[in-house]
Amino acid sequence: MKQIVLASRPKGEPTKDNFRFEDLELPALREGEVLLQPLFMSVDPYMRGRMNEGKSYVAPYEVGQPIDGGVIARVVESRSNELAEGDTVLGTLPWAEKSIEQARKLRKVDPQLAPVSWYLGILGMPGLTAYFGLLDIGQPKEGETVVVSGAAGAVGTVVGQIARIKGCRVVGIAGTDEKVELLKKEFGYDEVINYKTVGDMGQALKTACPDGVDVYFDNVGGDITDAVIARINFHARIVLCGQIALYNETRVPVGPRFLPLILTRSALIKGFIVSNYSKRWPEGIQQLASWIKEGRLHYKETKIKGFEKLPEAFLGLFEGKNQGKMLIEV
Amino acid sequence: MKQIVLASRPKGEPTKDNFRFEDLELPALREGEVLLQPLFMSVDPYMRGRMNEGKSYVAPYEVGQPIDGGVIARVVESRSNELAEGDTVLGTLPWAEKSIEQARKLRKVDPQLAPVSWYLGILGMPGLTAYFGLLDIGQPKEGETVVVSGAAGAVGTVVGQIARIKGCRVVGIAGTDEKVELLKKEFGYDEVINYKTVGDMGQALKTACPDGVDVYFDNVGGDITDAVIARINFHARIVLCGQIALYNETRVPVGPRFLPLILTRSALIKGFIVSNYSKRWPEGIQQLASWIKEGRLHYKETKIKGFEKLPEAFLGLFEGKNQGKMLIEV
Repeated sequence: MKQIVLASRPKGEPTKDNFRFEDLELPALREGEVLLQPLFMSVDPYMRGRMNEGKSYVAPYEVGQPIDGGVIARVVESRSNELAEGDTVLGTLPWAEKSIEQARKLRKVDPQLAPVSWYLGILGMPGLTAYFGLLDIGQPKEGETVVVSGAAGAVGTVVGQIARIKGCRVVGIAGTDEKVELLKKEFGYDEVINYKTVGDMGQALKTACPDGVDVYFDNVGGDITDAVIARINFHARIVLCGQIALYNETRVPVGPRFLPLILTRSALIKGFIVSNYSKRWPEGIQQLASWIKEGRLHYKETKIKGFEKLPEAFLGLFEGKNQGKMLIEV
Repeated sequence: MKQIVLASRPKGEPTKDNFRFEDLELPALREGEVLLQPLFMSVDPYMRGRMNEGKSYVAPYEVGQPIDGGVIARVVESRSNELAEGDTVLGTLPWAEKSIEQARKLRKVDPQLAPVSWYLGILGMPGLTAYFGLLDIGQPKEGETVVVSGAAGAVGTVVGQIARIKGCRVVGIAGTDEKVELLKKEFGYDEVINYKTVGDMGQALKTACPDGVDVYFDNVGGDITDAVIARINFHARIVLCGQIALYNETRVPVGPRFLPLILTRSALIKGFIVSNYSKRWPEGIQQLASWIKEGRLHYKETKIKGFEKLPEAFLGLFEGKNQGKMLIEV
């Protein structure tokens, strides 16, 4: 039985060498605990921040200790009254082939309601991130233009669709022609810009957003964000969800100072993490589930088979290898 | 009789050569108009933006046309039922020794309530800017730390005092030792940093703000703002009121990318202009006036005598020559 630990902290771009597979032996279950067999394991961009020393959103991973993240698991043994063998649960669990957790720290999920992997995606952290970030901070109004960077990712695919439901013109930014096609055909984006091939990003945005940008949902940061900010309207709202383009920088990068524009446009920039909205998660899950049921929200996963592929899948996020939610099927 | 027109648009730092004095002849009054004699004329940082081509907050000044701005004037002749000879009014008027305006575009002010020049400062645009920016966007809570850049200016002196009224620790940033003293003694600032002599701004902020920064009211932008943002707390609010350090830049300056920090701190940045709050101005004026009456709000003006000193007074803003509100007494 294996687990994956943080072998070393990355300097800049993470590599496979930052991970190490170790043998794992588990102790006997104690009262209130369950033994878990992972079914689906999530890899997410925010984990990059946890590989650094010092606090980002949440506590950093420790060198020599297992990586953890969102996992859907099956209970294979229980010493808790709350969970029975065979139950499917969602938890923050170590990257291990089996693990032990207190039942009270797990949330039971209903396999009848949706495929269980969805609780790591559209009905989980990425879906809720899209929902609260766009609606609570972005506050899109009918007829407005919403631009989404990292549009083909787990969050971006959901953001675009919600913006469409709200009656907005939706413009995505993504990094391959396949993603551009997918976003237009499957996720209802009005326009999608391939930032890798476009050449003049400013001109492309001007064409795609003839009425300017009212809401910008930012998953990436850096040059792309500079180009979008240059086109914001009065009272624009910039939702800061991710800055993946900058996560692997080894020193503070520089860029154009855009605060004078934020000022003269009376614009808003707001960072957030989904846990800010934890009290409202049930509302979010319910709304997302009902849009799915009505066929108004589509969902896409990039599933990679095999526990041993976890590091590779994670590293793939920074190369844009995922379409929609990236996860490991164990 | 003279007026001052925009002779040319400045490239970078404005100079006296951007202004030209011209002879002025006024036509006869038409129905509904009044002839005005300026008493106090305002110079404000936002005017720099209007000297450029293209829209900033408001329409740009035109080359060959008079500069205009906030003016307190006396009615010397009237063809309106709304205003009588001898009334004192506030208006947006040209930089001219006399001017004609429609009475309906002017607001009568009460010389009994406060010295009339105050309607260009604490009871006017700068006071309302401080009031709505700090309270509506900054939302300071008792015990929080509020940092104000450009602290000794027309807006900054008011912001600090309101933050104190709200029970905050207030830290100012200013550019001379005289201003530092003034802010501490007269305006109740807990700590003031002289950014010109401090050396290590980051360390000075760390010492002055041992619990981090909850609200940052930014009048200046640039390096000072970078240093403050580096110390913001979770859920910090950054009120963008001015970016005077950048107004004279001829190309887009670069600086450290701080959005990753805004993201991980769930912080907010919001630009605004006081006219966004025009419906609530009466509320603001009333509250400011009542704090003044209670002795809780002090006020400072830098008055320069002589119409011909207008360009010089304006240019002085960018050298930090003012303490509190800068204006011309005609």
